Amino acid sequence: MEDDFLAWLGQRLPPDTRLAVSPGDDAAVLSDTAPAATVLCVDTIVEGVDFIFSRDELPLVGRKALAINLSDMAAMCSQPLAALVSLVIPPTLTLLDCQQLYEGLLALADEYKVAIAGGDFTVAEAPLSITVSLTGTPSPKGTWLRSGAQAGDSILVTGELGGSILGHHMTFSPRVHEARRISQDWVIHAATDISDGLLRDLDHIAEASGLAAHVDLEAIPLSPAAVQLARESGSPPIQHALTDGEDFELLLAVPGDHAGRLLSSQPLECPITCIGTFHAGQGVHTVNEEGTLLEVEPAGYQHGNPG
Amino acid sequence: MEDDFLAWLGQRLPPDTRLAVSPGDDAAVLSDTAPAATVLCVDTIVEGVDFIFSRDELPLVGRKALAINLSDMAAMCSQPLAALVSLVIPPTLTLLDCQQLYEGLLALADEYKVAIAGGDFTVAEAPLSITVSLTGTPSPKGTWLRSGAQAGDSILVTGELGGSILGHHMTFSPRVHEARRISQDWVIHAATDISDGLLRDLDHIAEASGLAAHVDLEAIPLSPAAVQLARESGSPPIQHALTDGEDFELLLAVPGDHAGRLLSSQPLECPITCIGTFHAGQGVHTVNEEGTLLEVEPAGYQHGNPG
Repeated sequence: MEDDFLAWLGQRLPPDTRLAVSPGDDAAVLSDTAPAATVLCVDTIVEGVDFIFSRDELPLVGRKALAINLSDMAAMCSQPLAALVSLVIPPTLTLLDCQQLYEGLLALADEYKVAIAGGDFTVAEAPLSITVSLTGTPSPKGTWLRSGAQAGDSILVTGELGGSILGHHMTFSPRVHEARRISQDWVIHAATDISDGLLRDLDHIAEASGLAAHVDLEAIPLSPAAVQLARESGSPPIQHALTDGEDFELLLAVPGDHAGRLLSSQPLECPITCIGTFHAGQGVHTVNEEGTLLEVEPAGYQHGNPG
Repeated sequence: MEDDFLAWLGQRLPPDTRLAVSPGDDAAVLSDTAPAATVLCVDTIVEGVDFIFSRDELPLVGRKALAINLSDMAAMCSQPLAALVSLVIPPTLTLLDCQQLYEGLLALADEYKVAIAGGDFTVAEAPLSITVSLTGTPSPKGTWLRSGAQAGDSILVTGELGGSILGHHMTFSPRVHEARRISQDWVIHAATDISDGLLRDLDHIAEASGLAAHVDLEAIPLSPAAVQLARESGSPPIQHALTDGEDFELLLAVPGDHAGRLLSSQPLECPITCIGTFHAGQGVHTVNEEGTLLEVEPAGYQHGNPG
C-alpha cells in the first residue's frame, strides 16, 4: 500500500516553482527565487484527541492538519510557503483512505498557496496521526509575537467564539489573509490564535508581555455553536466562548487609537470585536455585569504547543 | 505533566543567536543573520517500528529522532540549521522519561549545532512517536540529489554495512561532516543515505538517474555486526549488508577520476569503498564471484520516505 500511495502522491503533487527539488529525494530544496523561509511551526493531530474516525471525514482530517499550522502562521502575520507532511498510518487504513486524507490537505494547500515539499510515511499499530511542519515568510511589517502587548492596549478578537467542537474545528478558515489585511493599515503589538481557548490564549499574551488582561464578559462575541452547545451541556454559552478550544480566531493586542479606527472600519468579512484591555499586573480577570473584577483560572482546552 | 515538561524545556533550551524568536510563541522565527533555510526534511520514529522501549534507552530514542534527519541533510550535502520537534506521548510516560528523551536529542543537537526552534506536544493513547523536521542550508558547492548519477560513475560507500539492528541504528554518527569534507575537494554526481538498505537505496539513485547499478558483492565492506548477526540469523553476512536498513552511511555516485583520487586519499575517519559502477540500463545487478551479472530485487527495510 505504501509504495502505491507514494507513487500516487508523486503524480498527484502539483509542480511548484518555489521548489528546486520535488518531493522524493532525501530532502526538499527551496528554489533561489522563493522567499526566505524564516518562520517555522509544527503541529501534530492524533486520532482520538484531535479528530475521531467515526465522526470526521478523512478529507477534513487532512485539511485540519494543515489548517492549524496555517492558523499559527496567521498569528505570526506570516505568509505560508512550504509544508512537510509526516503520516503515521494504522495498517487498517486503505490506499483510498490515505488518498482522501491527502486530497483534503492538498485542496487547502492550493487555496493558501502552500508548496508540499516532502514528507514521511510510517505504517504502525498506532492511531492515525499527521504532523505538518510549515515554513513561512514574515509580512513586510514584521512578525506578531505574544510578548509585545502594552498596558492600555485593547484586546481585539476576530469572528465569534465557542462551540467549535460542533464542526468549526474541522472546517475553519485560517485567518492568514485577515492577518495580512490588518497588518497593512494598523499597528498590532501582540497576537496569537485561539487554539487552547480564549482565557488560556489570552493568558499566554498576558504572561509573555508581563501584563494583566481584563475581559468584559458582555462584549465577547458568542458563536451560534456556543449557544447550541450550551443547550446540550447545561453550561452557559459564555463558558463555551471562554474555555472551548480550537476557535482558531486571531486574538490581538492593539494600541488604543489603532483599535478605535480598526473597529470602526471593520475591514474583514468577519467581525472584529473589542473584548477588553491590557493593564499593569498579571493574570486574566473578567469584568462581570456589576463591573466587579474577578481573577479567573484559564482552564481551556489543553493540547500543548511549545512552539 | 505537560505543563511541567514545557516549563522545564523553556529553561533547558540553550539560547541561540540564529533564532529571532525563542520557542514558545505560535511559531519560531529565524534571525536575519541566520543562513537561508532552504533545505527541508522530516522523519517520524514510532515505538514498535523504529525503536522498542524494552530494548532502547530513552536518550538514544530522542537522539535517533534527530540523527535520522541529520543523515538526510548529510545525503543532501547540507548544513543543519534548525529543528522542530513534535512528540506524541502515551500517558504512561513520566516527566523524567520525557526529559531523558529530550536530553538525548539536545546532546546531538549541540554536537551538530542545530537550533531547537520549537515543537508540539500531544498526550494520546498511542505509541510514543517523535517527528523531527529539520531545515538546513546547502554547502557552497550545492546540494547532492539522487538523480544526478551518470553512466560510468563509480558507486562509493562510507563506513561498513549490515547488522545495524544490533545497535548502530541507535548510536550512529550522521555523516554531515563527512559529506562536507568530501564536497570540498571532489565532484559528487548523486547521493543518498542508506536508510532502507543498500540495494533499495542504490535502486533509488539508479531509478532517479535512469541508470543501472552494478554491484560487486566481493567489494561490499561488511560490518562486524553483519558477521555477528549472520551467526544468529543463518543468513550470510553479505545478505545483511545488502538488505538490512538503517546503516545511515553515504552512498555516492562519483565520476571515475574523482573516485580514484578520493579512494586513494581516504580523507575521512571511516573508510570509503568502491562497490560498483553505474551503467546505461535499469535496475540493480550484482556481480558474483564468477563475474555473472544478476538482477536483484531490492528488498531492504521498507519504512517509506516520500521526501
